[in-house]
Amino acid sequence: MKYLHWTFCLFLLSLSVHSQRVFEEQAREVGIESLTRFKTFLALANDASKGDEIQDNISWVKEQLQDQGFEIKLLETSSLPLMIANLSIKEKLPTIALYMHLDGQAVDRSKWNQDDPYQAVIKQETASGFETLSWEALKGENIDEFRIFARSSSDDKGPFAMLLTALDILKSKKKRPAFNLKLILDFEEEQSSPGLPESVKTHKEDLLADLLLIFDGPMHVSKQPTLVFGNRGIATLTLTTYGPITAQHSGHYGNYVPNPALALTKILASMKDDQGRVLIPDFYKGIEIDLATKKVLEAVPSEDASIMARTQIATTDQVGTNYQESIQYPSLNIRGMRSGWVGKEARTIVPATATAEMDIRLVVESDPEALLAGVKTHIESLGFALLDHVPSKEERLSNSKLVTLTSKIAYPAFRTDTQAKEGKWLTKILKEYYGTSPVIIRTSGGSVPISPFVSELGVPAIGVPTVNLDNNQHSPNENLRIGNYLMGIETYLAILTTKF
Amino acid sequence: MKYLHWTFCLFLLSLSVHSQRVFEEQAREVGIESLTRFKTFLALANDASKGDEIQDNISWVKEQLQDQGFEIKLLETSSLPLMIANLSIKEKLPTIALYMHLDGQAVDRSKWNQDDPYQAVIKQETASGFETLSWEALKGENIDEFRIFARSSSDDKGPFAMLLTALDILKSKKKRPAFNLKLILDFEEEQSSPGLPESVKTHKEDLLADLLLIFDGPMHVSKQPTLVFGNRGIATLTLTTYGPITAQHSGHYGNYVPNPALALTKILASMKDDQGRVLIPDFYKGIEIDLATKKVLEAVPSEDASIMARTQIATTDQVGTNYQESIQYPSLNIRGMRSGWVGKEARTIVPATATAEMDIRLVVESDPEALLAGVKTHIESLGFALLDHVPSKEERLSNSKLVTLTSKIAYPAFRTDTQAKEGKWLTKILKEYYGTSPVIIRTSGGSVPISPFVSELGVPAIGVPTVNLDNNQHSPNENLRIGNYLMGIETYLAILTTKF
Repeated sequence: MKYLHWTFCLFLLSLSVHSQRVFEEQAREVGIESLTRFKTFLALANDASKGDEIQDNISWVKEQLQDQGFEIKLLETSSLPLMIANLSIKEKLPTIALYMHLDGQAVDRSKWNQDDPYQAVIKQETASGFETLSWEALKGENIDEFRIFARSSSDDKGPFAMLLTALDILKSKKKRPAFNLKLILDFEEEQSSPGLPESVKTHKEDLLADLLLIFDGPMHVSKQPTLVFGNRGIATLTLTTYGPITAQHSGHYGNYVPNPALALTKILASMKDDQGRVLIPDFYKGIEIDLATKKVLEAVPSEDASIMARTQIATTDQVGTNYQESIQYPSLNIRGMRSGWVGKEARTIVPATATAEMDIRLVVESDPEALLAGVKTHIESLGFALLDHVPSKEERLSNSKLVTLTSKIAYPAFRTDTQAKEGKWLTKILKEYYGTSPVIIRTSGGSVPISPFVSELGVPAIGVPTVNLDNNQHSPNENLRIGNYLMGIETYLAILTTKF
Repeated sequence: MKYLHWTFCLFLLSLSVHSQRVFEEQAREVGIESLTRFKTFLALANDASKGDEIQDNISWVKEQLQDQGFEIKLLETSSLPLMIANLSIKEKLPTIALYMHLDGQAVDRSKWNQDDPYQAVIKQETASGFETLSWEALKGENIDEFRIFARSSSDDKGPFAMLLTALDILKSKKKRPAFNLKLILDFEEEQSSPGLPESVKTHKEDLLADLLLIFDGPMHVSKQPTLVFGNRGIATLTLTTYGPITAQHSGHYGNYVPNPALALTKILASMKDDQGRVLIPDFYKGIEIDLATKKVLEAVPSEDASIMARTQIATTDQVGTNYQESIQYPSLNIRGMRSGWVGKEARTIVPATATAEMDIRLVVESDPEALLAGVKTHIESLGFALLDHVPSKEERLSNSKLVTLTSKIAYPAFRTDTQAKEGKWLTKILKEYYGTSPVIIRTSGGSVPISPFVSELGVPAIGVPTVNLDNNQHSPNENLRIGNYLMGIETYLAILTTKF
């Protein structure tokens, strides 16, 4: 904190154009120190399917925010509570809401290259992969390319830790945000935020704001400041096919008792062509990339070559002509598939069942019910009887082709007009601060449970992504680039100190 | 043992026709008592992928057989040893070899309805499923329908325990087998007996016999005595398809980065038609069900309705016109399939890989190499590049459709002529003993590593199955019907005491 005194004096002198330098040095210094607190936060396991874990996170977050002067309200829902934290500056000032989620995806410890996915580890990329460093390495120079590896480091505890640090810096300067601040903290986003849509209806007044900023998801691959005007929504589907009531010896019953895995592959393989385009009628209905839209999409620096190189793929699906265009369409994705056992556990059986987990990413033009109905009609057209439950003995004996299909529309997509005044306000801030116009993303591929705010409350919503694209979110070895962490703190500072 | 004295007197008086009654009562009494020893044996975990577990089984078996006067020889192989146990009666007598395997399939404890798959539990079927009884229940009446649940109870420790008990009974009567006895005890059959084919070549003299009887696999569903003149062989295949190098967020990359599960389903779905018939050219080449064969197959009491009712299926695959005919053809079975995660562990990702485990059951007419080549050609015809290794970065970036295929021909099929004199000898024994002709099975669907004996050593081989068909072998909740255990002891006694 040795620079605090003179930076504070400078700050008093500064106006918008000069403030960025000051913030930058301040943010680095305090930001690096704040990684210790971030590590403590990451150490709290946060699988939203485990209520106990979430309670620990709620307590920790609550304490941090109370220290910052926030008023905390826990909105009870049918599932986990939604936390609202208000920092009222002046009644007549506008209120800007910031959305973040603090739960994380489940972890498969065996797949992580570290002992514990919740014990953050610092690593550096080398020619032969990521190499572990000591935590002390953060005290050295050139640490921007280092990464902090832990579940939720990027998705989405990182942005919350950045905000806390930005607030620390403001506080140390005895400065307050330029508008009233409302944090909407979701503790079950990775479970599709089941409590959120009802909360928007029943707690309207607690949630109203003039603008909603979403701090979730990755920055553009160009590492330029990025604004996101829409997100795809999400629905999930589970399909199960049935063979023998219990797994049977594949010698005695192979090519006699029908194999459920084969039936499942018939269904799944028929849904998309070899280029990944959905073959179900009307799946892409209503989507039109007009000239104005094309212009917005084309203004985004091309990320195709970079994604292909990073994911090591030779070709991409051909839903759109490039990445930005592909993401304007709904997707139909096999996210998991299982029947019997594989690898060392493989058994020579005809399995009893085969299951596929799928997700549909929705766009604004999608009618989620219609897309699900289309999937169902398609499966029925293959001769399968559809059930919403595990078949009874009678159902099994009277139907040769049975599928159990359960589905859930988690939340629809949202899109704020890229030309809206709120976007222009943010664009100006980022342009002034970084000296370059932000990348304008019309629709981001990922989903955030924001559509009820836009559709029910009429609050425009814009995403301000801060984390690196290659963060392995939802997968083993999730990480956050230190440079992104520090830059994120600066982004918060720039926004919080600008009048809306 | 209270009947021992008078049964023994009776035995001295008896000749073949009457001996069965005596044996029957003796076998029941001693058989029920011997279940305690069987339980001890089952308690030895026997996953052949775990060498330590197998060593414990080898020690236990060795001790039991030495007590019975056998001479033990462990033939070292490149994997686990093969145990040969000889009981020489008289040099000039013929030698009959008995094959059994004493390893078991891997267990998935979470899927068993008992605490420990190796701690045997007695259960009784009720209207609402199997109900656990105390071990003491075996002292009651009408216990034939009770089952003993444990891994390997049927496959294949049960037949060994029956043999030990039959030998106990003979010993208690001071009687010896009517021929020299050679036990061939395999401890890695569930791993496809990798050491066995080489042993047949390098230890020819230790393995030669006049007849080989296989005590493995289930009896005919009619519960009639059964003889099996052939078994399908087995080859296994593992297919892996590739998506992004690490799993990617399905929102950001869904319908852009190709999904490996979709690719896998395209491959698998194209291999068979909706009726389970393999579509790969020449897969069924050379198989002809001529009139004589048809007659043998038709003499088997129909099991179709029974299998369908038990496995709760409405239709069967249509490879043959019925079960017996279907089993005369090679099968191509998906025994396991996995990509990403399902159920509570499901993650919204585009998975990195998708894997299918397959098995091909071979018949005598099959050329295993040709069948595997057919599968490979078929996959290539879909536009995939085939590899035998995980692709390098360069391979990934230069091929849009990649499959890693590894395969192993474990062992071919065998078939002994159903009209051979060895079969007539056995048929006569079983007919006299049970008062009914045994069911003659031309080919059993399951695989036993016996073909090298038949093809290399010229030893005719016939299977004498003793366990119940609905034993869940290879699956959770494997079990053996007590009635089958007791009947198996009698079958051994009948065979062992009849001159060859």
